[in-house]
Amino acid sequence: MDHAGENRSCEYSPAMNDTSAANSFAERLTQAVRRCGNPVLVGLDPRWDSLPASFRNGRDPADLCGVADAYRSFCLEIIDVVAPLVPCVKPQAAFFEDVGPEGMRALADVVAHARQRGLLVILDGKRNDIGSTASAYASAYLGESSPWGADALTVSPYLGDDSLSPFVQVARERAAGVFVLVKTSNPGGGLFQDLRAGELRVFEHVAAYVERLAFETAAPCGYGAVGAVAGATYPEQLCELRSAMPHTWFLVPGVGAQGASARDVAGAFDAAGTGAIVNSSRAIIFAHSRKEYKTRFGDSLWQQAVEAATRQLIEELRSETPAGKLAT
Amino acid sequence: MDHAGENRSCEYSPAMNDTSAANSFAERLTQAVRRCGNPVLVGLDPRWDSLPASFRNGRDPADLCGVADAYRSFCLEIIDVVAPLVPCVKPQAAFFEDVGPEGMRALADVVAHARQRGLLVILDGKRNDIGSTASAYASAYLGESSPWGADALTVSPYLGDDSLSPFVQVARERAAGVFVLVKTSNPGGGLFQDLRAGELRVFEHVAAYVERLAFETAAPCGYGAVGAVAGATYPEQLCELRSAMPHTWFLVPGVGAQGASARDVAGAFDAAGTGAIVNSSRAIIFAHSRKEYKTRFGDSLWQQAVEAATRQLIEELRSETPAGKLAT
Repeated sequence: MDHAGENRSCEYSPAMNDTSAANSFAERLTQAVRRCGNPVLVGLDPRWDSLPASFRNGRDPADLCGVADAYRSFCLEIIDVVAPLVPCVKPQAAFFEDVGPEGMRALADVVAHARQRGLLVILDGKRNDIGSTASAYASAYLGESSPWGADALTVSPYLGDDSLSPFVQVARERAAGVFVLVKTSNPGGGLFQDLRAGELRVFEHVAAYVERLAFETAAPCGYGAVGAVAGATYPEQLCELRSAMPHTWFLVPGVGAQGASARDVAGAFDAAGTGAIVNSSRAIIFAHSRKEYKTRFGDSLWQQAVEAATRQLIEELRSETPAGKLAT
Repeated sequence: MDHAGENRSCEYSPAMNDTSAANSFAERLTQAVRRCGNPVLVGLDPRWDSLPASFRNGRDPADLCGVADAYRSFCLEIIDVVAPLVPCVKPQAAFFEDVGPEGMRALADVVAHARQRGLLVILDGKRNDIGSTASAYASAYLGESSPWGADALTVSPYLGDDSLSPFVQVARERAAGVFVLVKTSNPGGGLFQDLRAGELRVFEHVAAYVERLAFETAAPCGYGAVGAVAGATYPEQLCELRSAMPHTWFLVPGVGAQGASARDVAGAFDAAGTGAIVNSSRAIIFAHSRKEYKTRFGDSLWQQAVEAATRQLIEELRSETPAGKLAT
């Protein structure tokens, strides 16, 4: 394996209080990706049944405090493994919510630890509501006094423009980011997203709106505070969206457990190898169960499996996509 | 004021463990609405600046434990006021999330207290994600071991069919309910929802899909486990949706602070006065600040303002909509 760039420091000082354009989320993301020399976004999706045995042994899954502690410890250890390697992580709110209030406490600790380790944190909550309630979500996750303190949040577009505005406003004020669902990676995503309305499909209408918001919030790097979620499982649409959305950072899920390969995401990048972060969750955090790592590492060396899987994805993206330019 | 039906008992024993068709969410909702003689859904949207002074006095809004305690006490008192009057309440997750993990603890307590007081609890979270993550949300809020224990959850349709299936499955297994966003009440909701795709607009495509799910999960009352959110601010569409979705319970927001009147929701009901629950949040829970109640009750008698506003909405719905038949 070529470990070019592995010794670069990914450390940075979280500076959410500096809301200058130069410190905008887009700028910080661009710098973080360049500093690390790769665009990998590690998904933190703790699932009880998939945890290494050491986290489950002696714990009763019906004891939610115990499960929350296990999720916290597991995610903190993953963060410590990947912090020197990648620019950002994405905790998935659903798995923490499934553990109740104790799980939410663990989520807050996970976000705080990741930021302390210099990682950008994109909280995956796919939130949204009517304007006045959307303001509460924006304040909750991205606001000045946010008890969660994420750098960015994923949001759903179904409620339209006045539901997105509060997020954009807080993103501007707080140098935070927002990723709007455009073309999701799941097989059924097309049911409504692919409906053709006039010249464009629904997701292309959403894409046009998101690109406008990105343009309006663009930082010196050329990208805006508003990004798009665009699935790796639809490589053709990913290419089309890239050219239609030149100011929009892409969050690309679907690589790994969902079946897409590094090659499938090549079209998501700009010519300089920026513009896209590529998410992998299960294939990295539960790498100890993967066929290719099981014998070599297994349960007891699960952290080494996480590191190996992260390095493997970094290498695949370097060799198969324009992200290779980041490491040169 | 005519208080017909006010002495009926709204008490019932929450029976989530009985998953027979006769105990399905649709059946329980129908029975609760008939028992109370009205379709009012009180929204629990605690906002710090709007709380009666007694909850804010001596508390620092930067102290999240204190804010969470205030939200908990405020909502519990509202529940005690409205439990003898209405069939259901709808806590809005966003306002609790804005207070961090302590706020989520308060949310769990609010849900538990409402159910203990015999109210059906529809948690407004507008959640969703790809299938495997949607399963975690479904388990979190509606599952057998749910730490929140809601009777129903609002969900977003943008991610398509495989994102909705896990909620439908849990709803079937657990006699729980799901309300899918169809036509939202906010002014900007039309941006994507009203796009015309072939013969139908996007929200009508969503409506057709939701009606199919409702039909497939229909209980003896004729309604299914899958309902629709359809805003009172679009009365014409509400009528069209009612006739297109005969098996679908409607959750109708938009009355009160959002500007719609009782008359605007008349089209949401079936001929028997069931089929729709009408949400009002701010106009009820912050009634002490409303012009018509301010002098009469004011801050110190805020609970009486809540009761008066609830009774007023009940009466308006009885005189202006088919829900009047419930009280006869």
